[in-house]
Amino acid sequence: MNRITNIAIVGLGQVGVYLYNELRLKKKEIEKKTGKKIRVVAISAKNINKKRQFPINKKIFYKNPIKIFSNEKIDILFECVGLSDGISKKIVEIALKKKINVITPNKALIAKHGDSLSKLAEKNKVNLEFEASVAGGIPILRTIKEGLATNKINKVYGILNGTTNYILSEMENSQEPFKKVLTKAQKLGYAEPGNPKLDLNGFDAFAKVRILSALAFNSRISKKKCLMEGIQNIELKDIKIANQLNLRIKLLGISQIIDDKLFETVHPCLVSKNTYIGNVNGVMNAVIIEGKPVGNSVLQGEGAGPGPTSSSLLSDLLSILRGNIKYPFGIAFKNRKSIKPFNNDMYSNSLYIRFEVKDKQGVLSYITNRLSKYKISVKRIIQTPDRKSRSATIVVITHKTTEINVKNCLSIFKKNKNIFKSPTLIRLYN
Amino acid sequence: MNRITNIAIVGLGQVGVYLYNELRLKKKEIEKKTGKKIRVVAISAKNINKKRQFPINKKIFYKNPIKIFSNEKIDILFECVGLSDGISKKIVEIALKKKINVITPNKALIAKHGDSLSKLAEKNKVNLEFEASVAGGIPILRTIKEGLATNKINKVYGILNGTTNYILSEMENSQEPFKKVLTKAQKLGYAEPGNPKLDLNGFDAFAKVRILSALAFNSRISKKKCLMEGIQNIELKDIKIANQLNLRIKLLGISQIIDDKLFETVHPCLVSKNTYIGNVNGVMNAVIIEGKPVGNSVLQGEGAGPGPTSSSLLSDLLSILRGNIKYPFGIAFKNRKSIKPFNNDMYSNSLYIRFEVKDKQGVLSYITNRLSKYKISVKRIIQTPDRKSRSATIVVITHKTTEINVKNCLSIFKKNKNIFKSPTLIRLYN
Repeated sequence: MNRITNIAIVGLGQVGVYLYNELRLKKKEIEKKTGKKIRVVAISAKNINKKRQFPINKKIFYKNPIKIFSNEKIDILFECVGLSDGISKKIVEIALKKKINVITPNKALIAKHGDSLSKLAEKNKVNLEFEASVAGGIPILRTIKEGLATNKINKVYGILNGTTNYILSEMENSQEPFKKVLTKAQKLGYAEPGNPKLDLNGFDAFAKVRILSALAFNSRISKKKCLMEGIQNIELKDIKIANQLNLRIKLLGISQIIDDKLFETVHPCLVSKNTYIGNVNGVMNAVIIEGKPVGNSVLQGEGAGPGPTSSSLLSDLLSILRGNIKYPFGIAFKNRKSIKPFNNDMYSNSLYIRFEVKDKQGVLSYITNRLSKYKISVKRIIQTPDRKSRSATIVVITHKTTEINVKNCLSIFKKNKNIFKSPTLIRLYN
Repeated sequence: MNRITNIAIVGLGQVGVYLYNELRLKKKEIEKKTGKKIRVVAISAKNINKKRQFPINKKIFYKNPIKIFSNEKIDILFECVGLSDGISKKIVEIALKKKINVITPNKALIAKHGDSLSKLAEKNKVNLEFEASVAGGIPILRTIKEGLATNKINKVYGILNGTTNYILSEMENSQEPFKKVLTKAQKLGYAEPGNPKLDLNGFDAFAKVRILSALAFNSRISKKKCLMEGIQNIELKDIKIANQLNLRIKLLGISQIIDDKLFETVHPCLVSKNTYIGNVNGVMNAVIIEGKPVGNSVLQGEGAGPGPTSSSLLSDLLSILRGNIKYPFGIAFKNRKSIKPFNNDMYSNSLYIRFEVKDKQGVLSYITNRLSKYKISVKRIIQTPDRKSRSATIVVITHKTTEINVKNCLSIFKKNKNIFKSPTLIRLYN
């Protein structure tokens, strides 16, 4: 690449067009830092005339991205479409086969096809970079791959989804219910207006957990889900009770090696307000890495939005321009091993269980008897009656118990007519 | 470097010998990650027989490090002696001239001679890496140079010295005075047993501020000190009063561009207990970067000790083994500009001023009159009498005022016989 480096951007949504504009603004600076001149020679999207934040050069526009490869000599391709399959996968595969470096913020694609794509990149001796796929502007993947390269990492966890963290924080601040806050988040652009499901149900965070695991443990991307729960069932009531207990609810993604097995999970956690993670609020993301010999490292920053995402995309670009050819996951594909998944039934936590019950004698003792039958030992009980509706809220905080045990125990309550609905379960973070 | 990469370590103190042992343990892993075999062929220290944490191979020991260069073919040299000049500077210069890559955790050396050494490295097309020189195991320099490479950074600040942060935290926890806590810190190995001055007076943190500035603003290393104050004058009394005000005292290092001028400082700050930085306690370090478009990035981790330091030294090693030849400060020496220093007199803050006075009528009004004469407007006054000694403590929290103004104002109080000593001044973090 001694001549000018030719760049193509496929996908001109919020991120793609922001990146396009940044490349224009920072051309000189990039040349100064890398000694390489760059030029965007092709851009592609579905609709040439869509209203965009920044103007585009229509002379280099392609409706069909595949045509770029036959018409232009491309050195680096940015994939900003964002699908886990379809055109995203197709153009990345074509590019890598043609020895074109690929940069993408597409976590769905990497979490699903990262193994085969990294193999393809290694075979063709080009880079596949995806810093922006996890935690937006936080250079977390580079930190694991390079900054902490020789540490033995045992655990990576954190707040990996800004949408859900905003919703949980805002429910606490405004004391408004889930649905109202979700609408607010959509208006502010923090949640997808059409279908926010993939953020809310933990799917988005889980894709990031998978990518983090592969990097932290030098392993293949796992195919199994140990446990994935979102925040759909969190009510304002839970936020309020947590508050009384000096706790806060956070959606945590956790990847960990337990007894040489891989444990990956995303679920809401109750964390103390006095902890670091309990004070990461709003759209912020934060990742904590437990490594030896480095100890605990914490990285926090804005997890979403075109600005932070572009910052990471450009850091990948500079890495490639500097000629830093690397394995996409830090080590060669053949050296990345599969790790057996941990048996989720044995996952053990203190629990917060909220029951909505008929305010009637015997209900509380029914609950405590059942818990005791399953050897779930109670640490604390808070019963709040609602006289008007002759109902009551019972919150039980338990000592540690396993998933399988609590699952068996809770299934019984469904059949009891004095218990209005399935109890709400939130795990306490250890 | 297709053959085995030969490594020399000069300096076998705590860090040097830990690194030596890590290189032995992680040889295989490094080969897997980089494709390069390494071998430590020479080590050097003053005393071959000193008691060390890990055994050394005496066959490769040199008393005189200069002799290594004539006896061995070295590819990478670790400088772990730690002087700002003398033998540290000498061997780094010899190595760079002989086209040997250099890795060092030596902040004193880099803060003082980083410009000339980076010029030398660039001329000889080898790397000079110093990730471990700032914030131990936190990959902060790599994050600025690579992860956030194209961001426009306006400010970098944080807790850059673990010793002082431990002392301040421990004074609050134990309610013990400065001297007692310092002795405890020395026993625990958090402070130099002989001469802890360079930690306490802010010198150590200031060296790190200088290195951060040069990287964040693509500038030459500054020679001027805007403002450097340590924690020597902080008393338990200040910690207690801060606590009452829901504040905490932290020694902050700050580097910032104000009106196109460079402002670098280290001084104690009062920060709210509700802020992120107010909750970084113990030996932890934390750095906050304000950049565009990325927003605020936070990195936190263990700032000292051989484990975290080795983690950074090895990340530098892997970067070199991967063939990632880079400018030591991110861009070429010739492109790094000098930035004029900000006029410190114009630095403006709210202030905490503690007076120790004779408990006598008229003293408080004398103080407030003088403050008012200098247009220093008072936000809050707390007067606590001590009946026994017929004295009183008066704490004034002011609105914002400039350094020059407060300096002029406070100088007057020295002459007043009712005011026992120079008032203690702590700036409030904006």
